[in-house]
Amino acid sequence: MSSLKRFQNLIRFIGSDGLIHYGDAIIPSSASSASAATEAFLVKGNPFTTPLCVTSTRAQILKLLSPIAPSDVGTLRCLGLNYRQHANELSLPFPEFPVLFFKPTTTLAGPTDPLIVPRIAQRRDKYSEREEGAPAEVDYEVELVIVIGPKPVRDVPVEKALDYVLGYTVGNDYSQRTWQSARGGGQWSLGKMYDGWAPIGPAIVAADIVGDPQALHVSTTVNGTTVQDGSTGDMIFSVAQAVSFLSQGSTLMPGDLIFTGTPSGVGAGRTPRLWLKHGDEVTVSLSKVGSVTNTIIYESAESGTPKL
Amino acid sequence: MSSLKRFQNLIRFIGSDGLIHYGDAIIPSSASSASAATEAFLVKGNPFTTPLCVTSTRAQILKLLSPIAPSDVGTLRCLGLNYRQHANELSLPFPEFPVLFFKPTTTLAGPTDPLIVPRIAQRRDKYSEREEGAPAEVDYEVELVIVIGPKPVRDVPVEKALDYVLGYTVGNDYSQRTWQSARGGGQWSLGKMYDGWAPIGPAIVAADIVGDPQALHVSTTVNGTTVQDGSTGDMIFSVAQAVSFLSQGSTLMPGDLIFTGTPSGVGAGRTPRLWLKHGDEVTVSLSKVGSVTNTIIYESAESGTPKL
Repeated sequence: MSSLKRFQNLIRFIGSDGLIHYGDAIIPSSASSASAATEAFLVKGNPFTTPLCVTSTRAQILKLLSPIAPSDVGTLRCLGLNYRQHANELSLPFPEFPVLFFKPTTTLAGPTDPLIVPRIAQRRDKYSEREEGAPAEVDYEVELVIVIGPKPVRDVPVEKALDYVLGYTVGNDYSQRTWQSARGGGQWSLGKMYDGWAPIGPAIVAADIVGDPQALHVSTTVNGTTVQDGSTGDMIFSVAQAVSFLSQGSTLMPGDLIFTGTPSGVGAGRTPRLWLKHGDEVTVSLSKVGSVTNTIIYESAESGTPKL
Repeated sequence: MSSLKRFQNLIRFIGSDGLIHYGDAIIPSSASSASAATEAFLVKGNPFTTPLCVTSTRAQILKLLSPIAPSDVGTLRCLGLNYRQHANELSLPFPEFPVLFFKPTTTLAGPTDPLIVPRIAQRRDKYSEREEGAPAEVDYEVELVIVIGPKPVRDVPVEKALDYVLGYTVGNDYSQRTWQSARGGGQWSLGKMYDGWAPIGPAIVAADIVGDPQALHVSTTVNGTTVQDGSTGDMIFSVAQAVSFLSQGSTLMPGDLIFTGTPSGVGAGRTPRLWLKHGDEVTVSLSKVGSVTNTIIYESAESGTPKL
């Protein structure tokens, strides 16, 4: 077993055998992220608990999936209002403690999957008086995503917190603003919970390759136009502070994900507001990690989603 | 395989072999819940996806655990303000839509486990000016808990929703009210997330045995004194409505849990307020299911939880 290595760019993919595998992406020297990889070294064991897991067996990549299987994620945590410029654009004070919410693990999706806007997210009523055919209040949020591993951790001090970070990926915390706010009874969950509304990828890049998590560039484009363009240095609570705080009295498990908030530039903070419409192409990017691109697809009335 | 049966009272337990098993509790005719069982028929396969899973092999029960393993739970959803009398005691209007929040799967615990109050939940500051040694703002919430299975479901209408309920158990949604409210930035998560703060049990009782989920008695005692005493008929959103609503655009997976809110009588709604102190014994009960009893243990300063 001494020939096994640590992963650098952990991916999950459909191979030429039609099966799903974890692998360490073989990135061409001309490229900068796992999105360009056509081959990977297969992984042995659970990569979130097994420090040495990369074999020397190569496999072909047919399609990239979310770099962690939903069944390998214990809990998907998210921070709100964690960038100074984002709090400013929403005219909200900086939080005194990290603001925590969750997404179901069914929100996970891969780096090229379509983003389906379900019928419930297109609802028109007294809270959303937009005309039929106008885009629903669907918004993007680029986020640096922490992956915990290979050991569980509870009550870790800030200065040791990064020891429990396995790596980083980039995600989009898609949000339906009317369900998040006006219809949510004060809790944001209803606007954040739809299937596939947390695409991540293209890889989980090992923490030692990423280096300082507060020195990364995060950005979003919609149909090629840049709409978010920030630095993780603008975070109110750093990665180390977030991991330490969330671990107080609450064990973080290997494979747990923490979305760390979004910089300024979201559609809800613009004048006029920018909502995502059917056919839009949205790309979120994180330096040293890569990009996730989704085409927005509005679910049609024929699928017959019933009302409450 | 035709000899396998459906479960009636699904438990998870440590057997006399020292290993953890799923089983169907053998309840003595003189008793009314799995808490009295000393033996169980072993279960084969994943009981949340396998309709016929009970074998004829008996095993001795040494200790009951949470009737579902945290790793078998995809997402733990909770409804807030879902009983009319509870909304009234907090002077809050009835919600127009179900109010959704989440707990990490690490909050799950068994029906007799101690409830540990971590140091972070004992914090004193400008938001909690109680004297040292006075109990922290720790509260109980008895809840009927829905277990989804054996098939996943999305977009289910109300009239078919109960077809996707595998069974029910009783849980206590322990809550630290200061972290939930004053320190939470509006989101309830920080007061709900600690290890073991969602004990459930003693069994998951099959839906057809429970019958009408809106005709059950829910109650809580603290040191033997009844503090909550209600009926699931007081729910604002019924079990069927909750499952239907939460499944809109969001797939509910086998093994997912839904805590359905608590009736009136919580400590935060009393004058004077009733907070749980070290050594208190708290029992939550649901008719046809049984009880969960936890002794409250305040974590001591010596464990050295660091501050943010």
